[in-house]
Amino acid sequence: MQDPITELVALLSRLPGVGERTAARLAYHVLAAPPDYATTLGRALSEIHARVRRCECCKNYTSDALCRICRDPARNAQLLCIVARPQDLAAIERGSTFHGRYHVLHALLSPLDGVGPEALDVPALLTRVREDAVSEVIIATPLSVEGEATALFLAQELRPLQVRCTRIASGLPHGGELEYTDQVTLARALDGRREI
Amino acid sequence: MQDPITELVALLSRLPGVGERTAARLAYHVLAAPPDYATTLGRALSEIHARVRRCECCKNYTSDALCRICRDPARNAQLLCIVARPQDLAAIERGSTFHGRYHVLHALLSPLDGVGPEALDVPALLTRVREDAVSEVIIATPLSVEGEATALFLAQELRPLQVRCTRIASGLPHGGELEYTDQVTLARALDGRREI
Repeated sequence: MQDPITELVALLSRLPGVGERTAARLAYHVLAAPPDYATTLGRALSEIHARVRRCECCKNYTSDALCRICRDPARNAQLLCIVARPQDLAAIERGSTFHGRYHVLHALLSPLDGVGPEALDVPALLTRVREDAVSEVIIATPLSVEGEATALFLAQELRPLQVRCTRIASGLPHGGELEYTDQVTLARALDGRREI
Repeated sequence: MQDPITELVALLSRLPGVGERTAARLAYHVLAAPPDYATTLGRALSEIHARVRRCECCKNYTSDALCRICRDPARNAQLLCIVARPQDLAAIERGSTFHGRYHVLHALLSPLDGVGPEALDVPALLTRVREDAVSEVIIATPLSVEGEATALFLAQELRPLQVRCTRIASGLPHGGELEYTDQVTLARALDGRREI
């Protein structure tokens, strides 16, 4: 049987941004803390997949059949924002400026990793756009290669439905300095210029 | 009932060096990973306190009554190294230059935090020094205020036993530049100078 500390360190070092040294620090911290913390955290982790499921409508994480946003009649169902991950949805929600609904893909096209169009479940998205009579789809996948490829692919798939399809803006971030901005971002900022 | 993700994030953010954003990243990673990872990590955490105990002799973490080092007849029992925490012992062991035994305090004197001499269990240490006929005690508590106070206190307590009591050296680290070394370290390095 493997040493329990070594085993715990190996498991913890599989977390993102946690190297072996950090994992050891976490394991020793848990051992030095009162035992009920380790038990509670352990149980929360063990149960997380059973307690969290995907919303039947938008695929966001939820404890119920429908998530809080899909249950809210005040949210505009005609405005649909597509995001890659639940944490992207959470980021937009923190801003409280968007009052439409969401669709969470849980994937981005990535041929090199073997992730093709079938991972995006386009039929479910098209059905939703049709049934909710969506007037605008905002594609808010990241501005990465995979995010851009996915955005283009989805826009193409949505074309037959003649729904307005938009992409979130690319440009300098709030407070951004031109001097320290990369060339692609600068070119996009110029390209996406607006009347003032 | 609290939202399970919020609950997990709150528990994870109690780990050292893990803020709320990092905790959220870890929670979302666990949710996106195959469920058996969460279950295995959860069980490892829940069981860690039950599977790891303190060595009856040196108080190091172990799965058995005696730790690997205390069971090893090749280790010199007459040379005893006192450390504050099991991870300090592990750090010295990584060097493979020390062949004596250890005594883990699991505490450092810290009057402001209400940690007094009773937390150090001095009687157990004195008994060990006597019974093992220890010839030298190396006090390897950290060079912090608490570590230094604990070292001085233990040296005082050990004095009646007339055992040789030493403190690990303080000075510039390997590759250290004088220009960037703080004044206390420089003073100690000069003070602790040796013939070459």
